[in-house]
Amino acid sequence: MKKIGILCSGGDAPGMNSALRAVVRSAIFEGIEVFGIKNGYEGLIDGSLVPMVESSVADIIQKGGTILGTSRSERFTKKEGVSQALNVLKVYGIEGLIVLGGDGSMRGAYSLYKEGFPVGLIPCSIDNDMDYTDYTVGFWTAVDTVTDAISKIRDTTDAHNRANVVEVMGRNCGDIALYAGISGGAESILVPENKADIDDIARKMLMGKNRGKRHHIILVAEGLGHAHEIAEELQKITEIETRVTILGYIQRGGSPSSVDRVLASAMGNVLVKKMIENDENKALAVGIRNGKIFTEDFERAFNRKKVFSKNLYDIMKIVSI
Amino acid sequence: MKKIGILCSGGDAPGMNSALRAVVRSAIFEGIEVFGIKNGYEGLIDGSLVPMVESSVADIIQKGGTILGTSRSERFTKKEGVSQALNVLKVYGIEGLIVLGGDGSMRGAYSLYKEGFPVGLIPCSIDNDMDYTDYTVGFWTAVDTVTDAISKIRDTTDAHNRANVVEVMGRNCGDIALYAGISGGAESILVPENKADIDDIARKMLMGKNRGKRHHIILVAEGLGHAHEIAEELQKITEIETRVTILGYIQRGGSPSSVDRVLASAMGNVLVKKMIENDENKALAVGIRNGKIFTEDFERAFNRKKVFSKNLYDIMKIVSI
Amino acid sequence: MKKIGILCSGGDAPGMNSALRAVVRSAIFEGIEVFGIKNGYEGLIDGSLVPMVESSVADIIQKGGTILGTSRSERFTKKEGVSQALNVLKVYGIEGLIVLGGDGSMRGAYSLYKEGFPVGLIPCSIDNDMDYTDYTVGFWTAVDTVTDAISKIRDTTDAHNRANVVEVMGRNCGDIALYAGISGGAESILVPENKADIDDIARKMLMGKNRGKRHHIILVAEGLGHAHEIAEELQKITEIETRVTILGYIQRGGSPSSVDRVLASAMGNVLVKKMIENDENKALAVGIRNGKIFTEDFERAFNRKKVFSKNLYDIMKIVSI
Amino acid sequence: MKKIGILCSGGDAPGMNSALRAVVRSAIFEGIEVFGIKNGYEGLIDGSLVPMVESSVADIIQKGGTILGTSRSERFTKKEGVSQALNVLKVYGIEGLIVLGGDGSMRGAYSLYKEGFPVGLIPCSIDNDMDYTDYTVGFWTAVDTVTDAISKIRDTTDAHNRANVVEVMGRNCGDIALYAGISGGAESILVPENKADIDDIARKMLMGKNRGKRHHIILVAEGLGHAHEIAEELQKITEIETRVTILGYIQRGGSPSSVDRVLASAMGNVLVKKMIENDENKALAVGIRNGKIFTEDFERAFNRKKVFSKNLYDIMKIVSI
Repeated sequence: MKKIGILCSGGDAPGMNSALRAVVRSAIFEGIEVFGIKNGYEGLIDGSLVPMVESSVADIIQKGGTILGTSRSERFTKKEGVSQALNVLKVYGIEGLIVLGGDGSMRGAYSLYKEGFPVGLIPCSIDNDMDYTDYTVGFWTAVDTVTDAISKIRDTTDAHNRANVVEVMGRNCGDIALYAGISGGAESILVPENKADIDDIARKMLMGKNRGKRHHIILVAEGLGHAHEIAEELQKITEIETRVTILGYIQRGGSPSSVDRVLASAMGNVLVKKMIENDENKALAVGIRNGKIFTEDFERAFNRKKVFSKNLYDIMKIVSI
Repeated sequence: MKKIGILCSGGDAPGMNSALRAVVRSAIFEGIEVFGIKNGYEGLIDGSLVPMVESSVADIIQKGGTILGTSRSERFTKKEGVSQALNVLKVYGIEGLIVLGGDGSMRGAYSLYKEGFPVGLIPCSIDNDMDYTDYTVGFWTAVDTVTDAISKIRDTTDAHNRANVVEVMGRNCGDIALYAGISGGAESILVPENKADIDDIARKMLMGKNRGKRHHIILVAEGLGHAHEIAEELQKITEIETRVTILGYIQRGGSPSSVDRVLASAMGNVLVKKMIENDENKALAVGIRNGKIFTEDFERAFNRKKVFSKNLYDIMKIVSI
Repeated sequence: MKKIGILCSGGDAPGMNSALRAVVRSAIFEGIEVFGIKNGYEGLIDGSLVPMVESSVADIIQKGGTILGTSRSERFTKKEGVSQALNVLKVYGIEGLIVLGGDGSMRGAYSLYKEGFPVGLIPCSIDNDMDYTDYTVGFWTAVDTVTDAISKIRDTTDAHNRANVVEVMGRNCGDIALYAGISGGAESILVPENKADIDDIARKMLMGKNRGKRHHIILVAEGLGHAHEIAEELQKITEIETRVTILGYIQRGGSPSSVDRVLASAMGNVLVKKMIENDENKALAVGIRNGKIFTEDFERAFNRKKVFSKNLYDIMKIVSI
Repeated sequence: MKKIGILCSGGDAPGMNSALRAVVRSAIFEGIEVFGIKNGYEGLIDGSLVPMVESSVADIIQKGGTILGTSRSERFTKKEGVSQALNVLKVYGIEGLIVLGGDGSMRGAYSLYKEGFPVGLIPCSIDNDMDYTDYTVGFWTAVDTVTDAISKIRDTTDAHNRANVVEVMGRNCGDIALYAGISGGAESILVPENKADIDDIARKMLMGKNRGKRHHIILVAEGLGHAHEIAEELQKITEIETRVTILGYIQRGGSPSSVDRVLASAMGNVLVKKMIENDENKALAVGIRNGKIFTEDFERAFNRKKVFSKNLYDIMKIVSI
């Protein structure tokens, strides 16, 4: 392997730039050329490639978003898109492609591999919704961001003796709500994996109020939607004034936290080394499991199923009263 | 004057606690007793008063919200509410009341003054919507918060080559949008004081796009509402994907910035001294104008009219391209 | 077990309060009374105990330092101190003691256990210098703090085209330097575990300078000391102006990051449950290894030896150029 | 005026990049070409100039340091240096020079003006040590940074029941210590303008200790030096363990706060407009006084004398007990 490409795909996540930096410098260190591909699979199809040198990734480890740009590509879900992408890779003499993204991006990379092209994946997603890895790059930064937002919302909620239903991202994964719920000291969380009873939450609000508690923060994962309806219902039962906050796009951005920077750097380095070692056609996903960075075949990764941390969920209920 | 009361009223603002700390310690330094009144005029009517000593306000200068609690009181807008409040003040032997809040809270204090009770006001509002003072306590912290949020939103907006319409607080005052627009480098702002043409904004978006710009942040003051409609219209004209973020309650909370802590501390101290000096019946508002802390009668304060900073607005358009 | 005590000992670390909150609420949830002991073993000897209820630990998950206070106790290293402590525990009817601290504090707890008293330990230390656990509570927050400081120092170092030798904490453990070195993008690190050659660092500085690099940040773990001498030597060899920063106490404080809050909450909860399950005399340390929270006997914990992450060290050298 | 140059000189300050951005875009808006000069007067003498377009200053409003680089130039204090600089300016056809810096940089610009070359100055310094302007760009950001550091130091100081003498920057100006002292709630400050008695500080420490206060933060402006000696003396008198922190270079860096970004943007815009209006030979300094942005001749500016805010100093002593 003498030349590789790298692209970001799907939703961006803090730490993508840290991973990009690690891949570029690790590859160059191993004597391999790197091309950066703009705007995900769209840019690959359109041939938007730029050579990357060591200084191309200077001063980006701390940057949110991605300097390469990203996209969700409709065209790449079609056969013609994939074969046009393969043409572009061939024209540039690229022998392997590293993709930074989530589940959808991994499926995209897999379709290249099925055509005989070696690919690698670094799991980047704020949602932590990939089954084969304990953590995705960007998740802990999003948890920090939500924790900080909860803290601000609690200030004003407490001042007014109210409740606030806060909708956080996570699609079908409740991890942002769960971890930020613990970290931010939220009173209750509603996640897809463990549908709490509205009555339980209302009872907790009333018991808190009786003890003199002046705020009640309820985190709702967006997969459950309906933050406004939940708030209305809680207000009706408890007669505690209940407002709504939809955190939205602030959760995607921001400078990656140390955890994400170290994780992205290690994952990028390990994946490059493994892809070189396995010079034949491979689809390799890098991840972290049981505290260790590892790589495994896409097929194996596809077959894993993440287990929701019921333990943490129970801890959350005990420590936040 | 031997005994004063202090309460927070209306929407909370970062720095209320810093002001409270300054009032309590300055009063005690001058030999005056202080009672804290819980939950604004509601608590005053209900007689929820607690004596404050120096250590009652220890370790709160950095806290968002207010340790006293605040409220909007319907009862206090009625004659009976005011006279019940006066009874409570008399029973406690309180000879002056300091109110931390915005326009509505000032009107409330004025109705006590009209009944012969000395009052003072410290302007606390994230909206900077009080005419008699250049800045209210809490405003600059809100600007910092919005600036930080814009920065996060820009990361992801840029990664996806999109636009984002961000609705910020401010009721009928565009200052949060204006100052955070400059500070956060937003491309356009829409404020009540200076209704920009949607076509102007769309043209700026298109010109930016042509120059290779990958993000467009448009700040909209909530007074104008309709962030979603504005986004739709911009997307229709420009064909740039345009998302919406409603920042909401995070703008109210958070630890006050240095500017707000210093401002609140100075205002609290000056108001206490002025109220003691003017021991007769007075309604005194403290403010900052032309860089100087001052106090003036409510009547005079009511007659002032804030001028929107057209200069800053023009600067914003020039420096953000 | 019906009644336990809890104390903080040795150097404080961000997250101690989060752990304290988890222990208190988990114990109460299990029907156990909790006494907080002030100022570490000193307070234990002196009988400074306060009953803790659920609300005693409200609003502290985010607080740096420790609300209980901590100390290094000379008296507790003596036999008389230990036996006086046992008397106090007996008088209060306390049947188990949870200690939040590092290596020294663990030795202290061990001496109680040797006298037949059940103890538990939650590893709290910014230095990450405990052999039996992959991470201590407080470590990742310190890494965030150092990363942020490096970022500020780089701004001014770059503006002046200089180098800066930054001394960080860690006693004999280079982990803060290593992790913050990666996270902050430092050019070089000097740690006790892997003494880099000054010539290597100087060469990297010169090569960077030749490529147009305008800043060089060298992190030095305090165990190696001599930041000033290192700076002088580097300046002599490279003729690049080299300044020194000793980060000092800011590394100990600050609000714990999400990682530390979740870690502390989980550790506190697990330890309480394990201590109840094992109602006989035990010395149980809680830790995290391979991504899992676990408990083990002190003796076993004492026998472990942490391995310096040579992998991360090599990655650091490759990604920071 | 058709072409201007801009450089940064002396110590860097957060907000220099915001000012640079405002100057470049305001000048281009007025139809004027801008050249950026690297590394201060050194780069001017050496002819290191680069043309600046609107996008040259994109995405820098939030960056600490300066993208142009800065320096203290020995050569420029000599006649030959100045005349070589004038040659370079002539060769490039530059008709006016804007300098971002402090007192020394202003003196440098003045020597060009004395040779008949129009100059302008934007006051950039974290120290707030320029007499003609109430605030310099970078000052409030430094106050935020020190406030944050104090908060971290207090966490650990409180946990151990200690005192901490914290040395902050400011050269001969005590403003950082004064403002951050108020904002951070420091117990005492020592500034050149108002030498407090060590006995006063010691007494305050002892009285605080008697009331149960567990921490004592004493801010010392670097102009007074000797933080270690002060700490020793305080410890001897009070028998409270007293540590030392020298904050150092972290005070110079960091992303500028909103106040500094708005101030820098407004100053940059106003100065450009004023320099165009006054097309003859002028030396114009922009500043803020009484809340208003203004420009005035260097000579007038040199004759002003800043008055130390004795009011704020007294307030500080009253509100921090």
